[in-house]
This record gives sequence, structure tokens and C-alpha cells, in this order.
Amino acid sequence: MTNDIKHLVGKNELIEHFKSVRKYSLSLISALSAEDCQLQAMADVSPSKWHLAHTSWFFETFLLGIHSRNYKVFNPEFKILFNSYYNGIGEQFKRGNRGSLSRPSLDDVIAYRRYIDEAVISVLNTAITPEIEQIITLGLNHEQQHQELMLMDIKYNFSINPIFPAYQSLKPTQVPNQQSSAAIKFINFDQAIINIGSNAENQFAYDNEQPKHSVLVHPFSFANRLVTNAEYLGFINSSGYSNPQHWLSDGWAHIQANNLTQPLYWHYINGEWFEFTHYGLLPLNLAAPACHVSYYEASAYASFVNARLPTEFEWEYAAQQHAPSNTAHTSLLLPNMADSSAAIGQLTDSCWQWTNSAYLPYPGFKPIAGVAGEYNGKFMSNQMVLRGGCVLTPANHLRTTYRNFYYPHQAWMCSGIRLAKDKT
Amino acid sequence: MTNDIKHLVGKNELIEHFKSVRKYSLSLISALSAEDCQLQAMADVSPSKWHLAHTSWFFETFLLGIHSRNYKVFNPEFKILFNSYYNGIGEQFKRGNRGSLSRPSLDDVIAYRRYIDEAVISVLNTAITPEIEQIITLGLNHEQQHQELMLMDIKYNFSINPIFPAYQSLKPTQVPNQQSSAAIKFINFDQAIINIGSNAENQFAYDNEQPKHSVLVHPFSFANRLVTNAEYLGFINSSGYSNPQHWLSDGWAHIQANNLTQPLYWHYINGEWFEFTHYGLLPLNLAAPACHVSYYEASAYASFVNARLPTEFEWEYAAQQHAPSNTAHTSLLLPNMADSSAAIGQLTDSCWQWTNSAYLPYPGFKPIAGVAGEYNGKFMSNQMVLRGGCVLTPANHLRTTYRNFYYPHQAWMCSGIRLAKDKT
Amino acid sequence: MTNDIKHLVGKNELIEHFKSVRKYSLSLISALSAEDCQLQAMADVSPSKWHLAHTSWFFETFLLGIHSRNYKVFNPEFKILFNSYYNGIGEQFKRGNRGSLSRPSLDDVIAYRRYIDEAVISVLNTAITPEIEQIITLGLNHEQQHQELMLMDIKYNFSINPIFPAYQSLKPTQVPNQQSSAAIKFINFDQAIINIGSNAENQFAYDNEQPKHSVLVHPFSFANRLVTNAEYLGFINSSGYSNPQHWLSDGWAHIQANNLTQPLYWHYINGEWFEFTHYGLLPLNLAAPACHVSYYEASAYASFVNARLPTEFEWEYAAQQHAPSNTAHTSLLLPNMADSSAAIGQLTDSCWQWTNSAYLPYPGFKPIAGVAGEYNGKFMSNQMVLRGGCVLTPANHLRTTYRNFYYPHQAWMCSGIRLAKDKT
Amino acid sequence: MTNDIKHLVGKNELIEHFKSVRKYSLSLISALSAEDCQLQAMADVSPSKWHLAHTSWFFETFLLGIHSRNYKVFNPEFKILFNSYYNGIGEQFKRGNRGSLSRPSLDDVIAYRRYIDEAVISVLNTAITPEIEQIITLGLNHEQQHQELMLMDIKYNFSINPIFPAYQSLKPTQVPNQQSSAAIKFINFDQAIINIGSNAENQFAYDNEQPKHSVLVHPFSFANRLVTNAEYLGFINSSGYSNPQHWLSDGWAHIQANNLTQPLYWHYINGEWFEFTHYGLLPLNLAAPACHVSYYEASAYASFVNARLPTEFEWEYAAQQHAPSNTAHTSLLLPNMADSSAAIGQLTDSCWQWTNSAYLPYPGFKPIAGVAGEYNGKFMSNQMVLRGGCVLTPANHLRTTYRNFYYPHQAWMCSGIRLAKDKT
Repeated sequence: MTNDIKHLVGKNELIEHFKSVRKYSLSLISALSAEDCQLQAMADVSPSKWHLAHTSWFFETFLLGIHSRNYKVFNPEFKILFNSYYNGIGEQFKRGNRGSLSRPSLDDVIAYRRYIDEAVISVLNTAITPEIEQIITLGLNHEQQHQELMLMDIKYNFSINPIFPAYQSLKPTQVPNQQSSAAIKFINFDQAIINIGSNAENQFAYDNEQPKHSVLVHPFSFANRLVTNAEYLGFINSSGYSNPQHWLSDGWAHIQANNLTQPLYWHYINGEWFEFTHYGLLPLNLAAPACHVSYYEASAYASFVNARLPTEFEWEYAAQQHAPSNTAHTSLLLPNMADSSAAIGQLTDSCWQWTNSAYLPYPGFKPIAGVAGEYNGKFMSNQMVLRGGCVLTPANHLRTTYRNFYYPHQAWMCSGIRLAKDKT
Repeated sequence: MTNDIKHLVGKNELIEHFKSVRKYSLSLISALSAEDCQLQAMADVSPSKWHLAHTSWFFETFLLGIHSRNYKVFNPEFKILFNSYYNGIGEQFKRGNRGSLSRPSLDDVIAYRRYIDEAVISVLNTAITPEIEQIITLGLNHEQQHQELMLMDIKYNFSINPIFPAYQSLKPTQVPNQQSSAAIKFINFDQAIINIGSNAENQFAYDNEQPKHSVLVHPFSFANRLVTNAEYLGFINSSGYSNPQHWLSDGWAHIQANNLTQPLYWHYINGEWFEFTHYGLLPLNLAAPACHVSYYEASAYASFVNARLPTEFEWEYAAQQHAPSNTAHTSLLLPNMADSSAAIGQLTDSCWQWTNSAYLPYPGFKPIAGVAGEYNGKFMSNQMVLRGGCVLTPANHLRTTYRNFYYPHQAWMCSGIRLAKDKT
Repeated sequence: MTNDIKHLVGKNELIEHFKSVRKYSLSLISALSAEDCQLQAMADVSPSKWHLAHTSWFFETFLLGIHSRNYKVFNPEFKILFNSYYNGIGEQFKRGNRGSLSRPSLDDVIAYRRYIDEAVISVLNTAITPEIEQIITLGLNHEQQHQELMLMDIKYNFSINPIFPAYQSLKPTQVPNQQSSAAIKFINFDQAIINIGSNAENQFAYDNEQPKHSVLVHPFSFANRLVTNAEYLGFINSSGYSNPQHWLSDGWAHIQANNLTQPLYWHYINGEWFEFTHYGLLPLNLAAPACHVSYYEASAYASFVNARLPTEFEWEYAAQQHAPSNTAHTSLLLPNMADSSAAIGQLTDSCWQWTNSAYLPYPGFKPIAGVAGEYNGKFMSNQMVLRGGCVLTPANHLRTTYRNFYYPHQAWMCSGIRLAKDKT
Repeated sequence: MTNDIKHLVGKNELIEHFKSVRKYSLSLISALSAEDCQLQAMADVSPSKWHLAHTSWFFETFLLGIHSRNYKVFNPEFKILFNSYYNGIGEQFKRGNRGSLSRPSLDDVIAYRRYIDEAVISVLNTAITPEIEQIITLGLNHEQQHQELMLMDIKYNFSINPIFPAYQSLKPTQVPNQQSSAAIKFINFDQAIINIGSNAENQFAYDNEQPKHSVLVHPFSFANRLVTNAEYLGFINSSGYSNPQHWLSDGWAHIQANNLTQPLYWHYINGEWFEFTHYGLLPLNLAAPACHVSYYEASAYASFVNARLPTEFEWEYAAQQHAPSNTAHTSLLLPNMADSSAAIGQLTDSCWQWTNSAYLPYPGFKPIAGVAGEYNGKFMSNQMVLRGGCVLTPANHLRTTYRNFYYPHQAWMCSGIRLAKDKT
């Protein structure tokens, strides 16, 4: 974003893209009630209603408030209510209380979206400067991130309800019936100096993926698929959660303090394992990738099988050579299972993959200029990088340079385990 | 409740009373959206939807499940979801998460109410045993308590929204315009042995008001009205919140730990005082009683003016001799102001009044028999008694023997300050 | 203390009494190291060193600083360091950090004591005004309270050390060998109007015991002895700690949150019960009174046996009629066992006894005048009264009007269970 | 440690080195009382007594218990009491309670040390296998780490005492009188592939420094000295602590939650700045390096001056080319000031230097074999690397490959700020 992006798209294309992304956000709540859209079952998640409002606030604040002369603010209270974390913009409503706001109502928020949409399209219909194009592009990528968040958050919000509500219904015939997987293969990579990151020349990239730079990668091998539920169950059944041996010290403290004995959405009921999904409670599919694990769990599992997690550079290198195909993308909100035909599979279409890299700036990193500079840079501490993408990520929001990041204890995103090893 | 109640009412009267109380609960949400009814802005309060469901669960659990032969449970999940605190019934859904349930929806809960209403009326239409009459009476009194709680909780839930939503609208002409009050007078009472409590002979009474027993009361004097906002403001302006002198040790620790500098709903904005009400933010009415004060605040204020809080026995004695009139009861959801014509006023129609009595059993106290025995008895520690009633209390739910109770730090109920003194 | 105390004692007697009390405090640490005297294993307890300094600070602050013309402060830093909770005197060092002060050393504190002793005796040798006599008397009673606290606190401080250090050694022949007790008898008391409290005419009494006033007590019966370990074990063995039935709501929450399954100092090791004592770990003596129980535990046990705890007025009435004898006072730091010859025994020489009375002011209560007024009054919320005395209490510090008070969850004092019942 | 270390030293040399290191630990408490040695003013620090015992426990557990046939354990309780965090060895006494152990006494611990010393020397006098040499070397390096910790912890333990005790005394003539510093110069480094880490061929190195491997470093410039107190004061005086602009998001949350407005040991008293030191409270020396800053503070300061922190690879590269001289090492326990003659100074003899590298394994990292494998590896999450060394570090414990690590919020170690920049 700090570099000029040369006319990536034409005006009409941009307007159509804008409309399409904005419409998709709304489609995500088509099966939800206003009550559903207000849920906030822990401080890390936000109500769907809030996501819908905040993504509009983003365009209002960074585009309309700056680049639209006659723009009249929809509601001055929203400046605080829907500011997520931009101190440069001003005060923010307390994050953990977002679920305690019934006003504005969902209907009010939808009206707000409509108002913003019209105002943005009106700006786009006059003159698109490179600056405006940049902020539109950032805003749409931002909205796509929130689309994935909406799906993650709804799942969490429903998960604590003992009724286990389903976000969508699943016909029995749709339930994936693959039940086993071929053994993991480790693909070798030689030492190399590789290009990491992007200069956002031909494709949008966030500031945290920039600049493109060279990294020396040591010989390693990389698993051809993600760890499955069956494999992870092996760890559980080997006293994985009651023996500190394989855990990082902070990880062991975390599972002790929270009495964790299994991944976030797993339930052991009357001698059988289930997993909470967007389709309600389903029997645990042993061939599906282990998902919703924390970094601590991923790291402990890797140690258990004498492997380790890859660095984010190893991951990007592997993805450069085994370009992820999105063709296998299912229409279900369940992580895709391994495709045995792929040399290296499940790179972007199944679960995000914890790396052993801390989320830190690349050499030469510069935040986006202006108030949107808080977008990524200020979170560069205490978090770990996840690479890839997941079944909830909008398809055109994926790229091999993408850096996702979460705290090591978090697990409500679709986070899985890719193994790696030092090449011997 | 432990005593037999002789046919207080006839069958039709009972059915009409049942319908009327149940209908009133629903009327309280007539101006609210489903989103409003789901709010739970702190663990102490519950969503309106939850109150509507729990009061139905009460009849289902203690009446239909026991006394109705063919009763079919509406939804077995509700047994846990809407159990407040009855360990004898079983597990309970986590109190602090009640606002995180979008399902059942408000519509589902209203259907549940209808189903319960029909089932109860059907029971009442067959044969009313004394036992059934007792449990109906208890259930209706229980529901009336929750009606007051609904109004308290809605107020709190709206109060943290910076938009300050109004539960109801108030015409400018309705705003109370009394701005000053005559000085407090202290009415003397001689030493006496008085009857305290009720045997529930002619009127329903909770187990905690029983049995009627004699108490020796020492000479005291009792304020003819409640402390006003103007008077309480004098305490604030005398560094009341920055000087430990008048505070109980626990109270001082509480206001320090929570940075309290004023009562719960007061706001100081641009040099003026406001109070959040069911009508949104209103200028602080100096003649109105100070309301939403904690026991710690009430006790500190009393010390500040060289007075003390009355015991619950002194309060009951005063109320016996100055029977509270409910005629002055306003239709507004604002505490009534002092009526200078009353010898002792504002006993039940304005704010509950903190007493200096801990909530403990009366001599000879016995909990209601059966599982409903958890109703009152198990809360007899750490709480203080409030007496009287408030503008939110259903009118026919008041009596001079009524014992309300809250923790000393709580303030989201309509709690005001009645002063007393040792008679010298 | 608010009343004039007429020459209770002569000058020499007072000086001797002063010397004797002060000396006894020092004797309590004769078997302890400087390291032992610095321990503070939880915020509720204080290091022995701190007690020795604070009781000297009390005389310095309330006597020497006010009544001694040429008194030179020993060390100005001590004003803050050894102020317990007197906001009227000024700031206080953070209570929970008292164990984190190695300077002043124990030797410094002993020198401080000597300095204060000399200064006080010098004041007493000149002229004793009634005011001075009052503050000396208060200071010595205050010191006696701290003597009991020192013994309580040392026990707690040693209890968390897995080595289980012994404060004193016990010869095998000294171990009490009584192993069983006669069944509890309930002694009846008729309704009466009784005198409660003291006017401090012939004997010192704290402000919280004053004034003497009449109370109407209803018919009750009162256990002739305390509940034994054997009896309490019956409660444990009947799933007492895993069933909410008999617990107050706050009590159940407390034992759940803290995973409590037995009284504070009990240990179950290899199938046998032990109790940590001033003599290290001893096998649980089944005939000894259950000690170190919280109010919640006492209340749950009483409910378990269909009894209740007495009110503090019932306790005082029983003690008036069955004057406690201190003759049976053992020299061991273990609660005395029941003496079957006593009509009502173990009133003051064994364990303090939880009552069902909240710690609140008596009618007409006035705090001591001046800064020492914070002594008792400001703690009159959230605590329950214990009556009697215990084996750790200095013998001449006992009286039937004495009101001890602790929070319901606390158990590091010698707190036992006296049962009572409504007389039927 | 995972590699064989060829006879680094002869037997006598090893014994002498052992004696010398062990003696130095004891010398650190020569001016402390037993009370001082028991202090633990926060959970992160340990009592000096505990350090003295734990470093002996280390030899007992990893050497004597394994390699000495007839070794008789000194006290079986110590296995738990002085185990820091080795789950492979067994249970550990609760870390935060170490200051609550008066037994064993300091004298007991010194006797324990003597016992261990004799047993170790006896082993060394028989036959030194490579394994034994390795564990001795590890144990001595471990002890040297604890020597620095002892000095850090004593400083913290004294710092919360309002008396501000001095660990050592300082003559007025010893007070450093340098008051100003030349402006920072940035030294340029070109892109290079460099060797990072050690194979422990000629010098001991921890497992976390291994293996030696190549890293590609991008062009950068590196400050010739550390940031001074004067410079850091400029940040404070520019509203550094009240403006979120330069802070990482977690850092801003941390200083808000803890009300931080200055570095850990700074005090602003009557308009003047002081710093707590091993010599008590001293006026803040403006020319001295800013010390005891957290990673958050270091990062915010760097942003404030448009710079950044170096990576640990940049730091090691700079140190390779500007070999740190220890000649300027003062005998004072105060960070050395900049030596203007050095091209790049203060590398190891002043303060540790926060890097912008997370503490993670090197490619090919393997923990030490056996139970000591918990030494370093399990802490590789959530911490940041500090490089260099500080004035408290034993002189022969320094090397350019050394990786120190702390959580970003911690500041009780001697942590300073080295600036770097991308080379433009």
C-alpha cells in the first residue's frame, strides 16, 4: 500500500467489485436473526452487526470523511461506536461490550451500509484518483478479512449455546464421507536464497507483506498435507494433555489454568467424539484436518511426532513451488480434506497453518501512511504468523505472501497443523 | 408459605390474577426490540427474554412438572437454560452468559409463555388443592419480583450505551418540576416490644418474613422523607468521595478499586449534572430522592450528617404506625418526591431504603418445604436488608413486612437513603 | 472506652501490667528466627516482626505523640510502615507487602520496642491522667489481640511450608489422648429480656461491646460442647463438600472456586487424616473440637445436623448463666477438649465460636473519640461475630461480652462450631 | 552442549573454576542479612537464599544424583523445594511462594552448599568423564546466570521498601560525574551472509545458541552507543506515556493497565528525578544509559526518534566486527556510560539490549539431551531476545552469541536501548 498501484482495474470494474464484496458481507447474515447478529460470547469476537457497521465506518472514516467534499456523517455517535482500534481517529467503545449494544439495531446498521454504499459509489462515479483507488482497495480487503471474522465469530458465538445452533443446515448426503488418509509424506527443500513478500506491483498486498526481500532458507522438509483429527486424537490418547513433556512452558501453563484437554470445539459425549461446526454438532471426522488448535497445541503435537512447525519463510517457499490450487474448494464450511493427488496440498483451502515465526516487521517495513497506519504495524508483538488461508477465507483474498497472525493461545480461527523437519 | 393459606381467593379470581400478572410481564417489553431483550451488560442483570422464560420455567418446574399428570415438557433444554440457581433441580447455564444466547429467540420464548399459560390455566380449571394454590401464589409473587428486575435490568443495560437509549419517552410537560424540599424532620419513637414479620395468615408472605415474632426496639428517631439529590450533592461537594473519614473500610476499598466518584447513573457533563433514567439522560432533579446508591454510599452519607441508617425493625415499626399510602403513586418510572403533607412519607412508593440490618433468618425461620426451599434461605449471608418498595415495584406486591436484600456494593436497584438517629 | 474509667488500677500496678504484657509479646518469638519473623504467607496475616513493631507504633502514635512533651520519634519512616489502617493518621504501607520488608530488621524492631517501653514508662512515672490511663489500657488490650494474631499468623505462615515446621515441640507424653466424647446435649433457655454488652464500668471493654442494652431473646437450646473432629468428619464422609444442599449460596461458590474439600489445616495423607498444628503435623484427634472452619463450613455443618448457629445474644445469655471457667486451661496450643463435667463447656478456652449474627453496631454505639475511633467501627460490614475465646487468647483478655469478627470465608483463626436450635 | 567438548580445561583448572564460581555466589550476600536473603517482592524474582540453594540443587540433581555412586541426598524435601521448573524431575514448590519459606534457614542453605561442594569436588577428584565435564560446565554457567539474577532480584526486592535500602555503599567521590554524551552516530553495515551462533567448539555455549548457521542480513545502520537517560527523558517530556502514537498495541495496553509513566526504578520527587540503584536512591544521571526499560518502552522510544530496534542477527554482526572490550568495565554496579573513543561501544559492559527478534529456535536447534533439556527450549514463545550483557553479568560469562530473553513487559533486568535503522 505504500507503493503506487498502477491502474489495477478500470472504474466500472472497481465499482462492480465494490458492490460485490459489500453484498457478500450482507449475504453472510441471511440466515441469522437480529438476535443472532448481536451475540458476543467472548471479548475476542464481535457481533455480526458490529462487523457490518465497522466495515462501513472504515469507508466513511478513511474515504468519505477525507475525499468526499459534501459528505454528511450518517450518525456522529458511530465515530466512537464502530472504531475498532484506531487511536489516531479517537476514542473507541469498549471492545468487550460490543454485544451489549442493542441500539443501533440491525436494521439501522443495514441502513447505514446502504447510505455508505451510495456515497462511495457516488465518489467512484466522479473521479478516481490513485489515492482513492488505494483506499477503496484497502477497504475491500479489510472487508474481506471481516467476512472471515464474521464466520469465525458466529461459530464461536453459537458454540457456547448448549442447544448447539446450526448456522447452516447440511443434508445427510453432503456430510463428507472420506474417513481415512494416506500417511504424511515429507517433501525435501534445499537451501536457497528466496524472495519473500511482495512489492504490491501486480496485486494488492498489505503493508506487513512488504517489501519483497531475500531470505536465506536452510534445508528442510515439508509435510504434504495437514495433520488429521485421527492423528491428533493419537496425541490425546497418549496422555498428551496430562504430560508436560511436549509443551512449551507457557502452553502448559495455559492448558492447566484453563483445564483444557482437547481442541476448542471438540466434545466427548457418551464415549464418542464430536466437533461443533457451522452445521451444529457433527461426529468428529477422523480424516479431516485437526482444526481450531492453538499454537501451543500445534507445537506440542509437532514435538510429539518428532517434527516441528515450519517458519513462515519455509511455508512461502513451499507455496511458491507448489502453487496452491483453489479448484478443490468445496462449497461447505468445513476444512477440505487432503487431496492425495497433490504433491503438497491443503495450502490455502483448508485451515490456516501455524508457523514457528513470530509476527514481526520485514526489513524495510513501513506502515501505510496516515491514520490507517495503525492497521497492521502496532500488532507486531506477542503474536505468531499463520500462513495459507482457510475454507472461510473469501477466495480472491488469498495469496502466498499473506501473513495472518494470532496470539499463541487463540483457537477460534480455522487453525491447523502443518509439520516440517530439518532436512538431515 | 410454610403455613396453610386459607382460601385467599376463589378459583376465577385466581385465574384472572394469574392472567393479569402474566400479561403485565409481557407488557414491559412492548416498546423493546428482540435485540433489546437480549442485552446483559453485566453478570448481575439478565436479559428481558431470560426473565420472561425463567418465570415460565418456574411454573413448569414447580407446578406443572409436579401437579399436572399429562404435562409434556415444552423443550427439555430449557430445564438447564432457565434454571436460575436451584441446585435441587440440577445444573444451570452460566449466569454471566445469559446475554450470549440468541436461541431460543424472543418469539420462541413468547410461545413458551403461551404454552405454559395454557397448561397452568388448564390445571387451575380442574382442581385447586391448597398446595397448588400455594405454588401459584408463590409463582406470581416470584413473577412480580422479576417484573421489577426487568425494569432495573433494562435500565442498566441501556445505561452503558453511549447513545443513552430511552425505555420510554417523556413529554416535556411530564418532567417533574418540583425543585426543592422542606428540611428533613426526625420523628421520635419510644422503646417498645413490637411484632415483626408475618405468619402469612391473611396475606401472602415469603418464608424470610416469617414467623411473626417480637423484637425489642430502643428509642430512635426516623426521618420523615428520603435524602434528596441536592443533599447528596452536598456530600460529593464536601470531598465525600476523596476522604475516607465517613466510609466503612470495605466501602472505601470498593470506591477506590472502582474509581467511583458519584452514584451509579450520575454523569457530570460540561459542568452540569445529569442522571440516566428510563427516559434517557435527564438533568439531575435536586428535589428527587438520591437513588441507585450502594449501602456503602448510604452509610457514608448518614455518617456525614451525623445520622445512621435505621434497622429493619425500626423501619417496620415506623411503617406500622405510618401506614404507607400508595395514592401518590405516579405513573412515571421516576422515584416519587417527598410529599410534605405526610408525617412519614416515601415509605414504599419511591426508593427502597437501605437498613443497617444484615439479611439473616428470623427466630424460628424455616425455608419453604421442597426444592423451592432454595428460594430465599441460601442467600442469608453477606447481604443487607432494604425495606419499603420503589416506583418500579408492582403495586400489589408491597407490604410492610417485605424484606428485600442486596450486596452492599450493588446499586442498580432503586435504592435510596432513609436516615435514623438514636433518640437522645 | 467512651466512658470514664475510674481508677481501675494504681500506678505501679499499671506499670507492672504494661511491662508484663509487653514482655509476653516478645516471649512469643523466643523460638523463632529473624527469618521466621518475616514471613507473610498471605495478605491476611502479618509477619511477627510487623506485629511487634505495630503494637509499639500504637503507643507511639496514640500516647507518646500526643501526651509526651519531649518525645522524639524513633524513626519517621515508621509512621507509614507500621500504620495498619488508620487513615486519620495518614498513608499506610501496602498490607500485602509487609513480608517484603527486611529492613528494619528484627533487631531494629526489638530496639524500637525497648525505646517505646522506656518512653511509656517514663510517662507513667510522671502523671497518669484518666486520658492516659485509657489509652494505655486500650494499647495493652490492642497488644493482647495482636498476641493472639501472632500465634494465628505463625501457624499459617508455617502451614504452607511442605516441611511443616513446628512452632514448639511436643513430647509424646503431652499428646492429648482423649479419643472420644459424650454425645452433645442441648440445654434449654426460655424467652427473656437480657442485658447485652458492657458499659465498661468495672472492666475494660471495646467500644463495639457498648453500650449495655436490653435484647429480647426467644426460647432456644444451646449445645453443651463444641462439634468434634469426629462429628465434622461425618459431614465430609457424607459428601458434605460435593453436595450444595446444606451450603449458603456464597459458601458453595467459595468452596467451588477454591476447590475446598476439608477444613484449612486438614491433610489426608496415605489414607489417614492429619492436622497441622503449632507442633507440626499431628494425627487428627477425633475428640478435639473441629477448628479453623469458616462461617460457611460452620453453617453447612449445622444445617447437616438439623441445627443452626446461635446468635451472639443467645451465646452471651448462655455464658451469663454458665460462667466460663478458665481453670481447665491447658498449657498446650491445642483447643481444649470437652469437659464432660461442665453443664456448658468450652465457652472461652477452646475455639472461638461462629455466631449467626452479623458484626453491626449496638443501639447507641459510639466509636472511641479521636483518631483511634477507626479501631472497630469502620469494619462493621460483611463480617460475622465470633464469641468466646480460644486457647491462643491471653487469659486476662477474655470476657463474655467480647465480640470478635471475621469474614465468612476466613478460617486461619481458631474458629469452631457451637450448635443451637429453636426451642420447640 | 549437544556436541562433544574436547578437554577445555584440565582437572585442577576445573576444580579451581568450580570453587571460584561457587565462592562468588556466596560473596554476593556478604553484606546481606538472613532477612534480606528471604525477600521475594514479586513472583518473577526469587530470594537470594533460594538462588543459593537452587544452584546447589542443580549439581545435586544433574550431577551427583546421576554420576556419584554413593551420594546421599542432603535432604529429600529439597527435591521439590528447590526445583525451579524441571517437570522431568518432578513437582515444584509454588514459585510465587518462595519468599514464604523461612525453613530451611540461610544457615541451612549455606551448609547445603558446603555439602554439595564437597561432594562435587570429590567426584572431580576421581574421574572426569566428558559427560561430567559437560554437566559441570553447564552447572557453572547456570550458576553464573543466577549470580546476575541475584543482583537483579535484590535490587527489586529493596526497591519496594520506602526506606530504599542500599545493597552497597557508595562514597561521594565514586559517584560517576560524567553528565553529557556526544550525539549518537549510526554506523553502516552492508548486506551480508553471516555466521550466527556457535557450535561450542572452543567455548561453551547454551543449546539455544546452536547450531552455527548462516543468515542473510540486509543493509542497516547501528547506533554507536545506547540511549541515555537524557534522551529518554525527552520522550517522557514529549507526552511519551500519554499518547498511544508510538506504542505497540500490547505495550499501550500494558502501560494503561499499570498506570506506568516512567521506567521501573525512576522516581520523581519534589520536581527532581531519581533512580533507585544498588546504592539506594541516586539523582538520575543524564549521561548514563536508560536502563530497566521494557521491550514496549524500548520500541516506543525507537519509534519516537524514527529508528527501530536491531534484530539479534544485526546485533551479532555488529559485535563480530566491533569486538566488545571489557576493559572499561567499572567496578560499580551501575551501567557503564558511553566511551566516546569506541567505534561501537557499550556492547556487553553496560545494559542488555532489546532486539526486535523473538526468542525462537535456530534452524537445526536441539535441546540438551536428558532432563536438563528443559533448560532453554520450552521457553521459546512470547519472549524477546536481548543481546550483549550488562554490568551485573559475571565477566567470563559473556560472548557475542549469547541469547538472553525476557517477556516484553519485564524490566527488572538491566535492559537498555540500542537503536538501529534500515540503511537508505
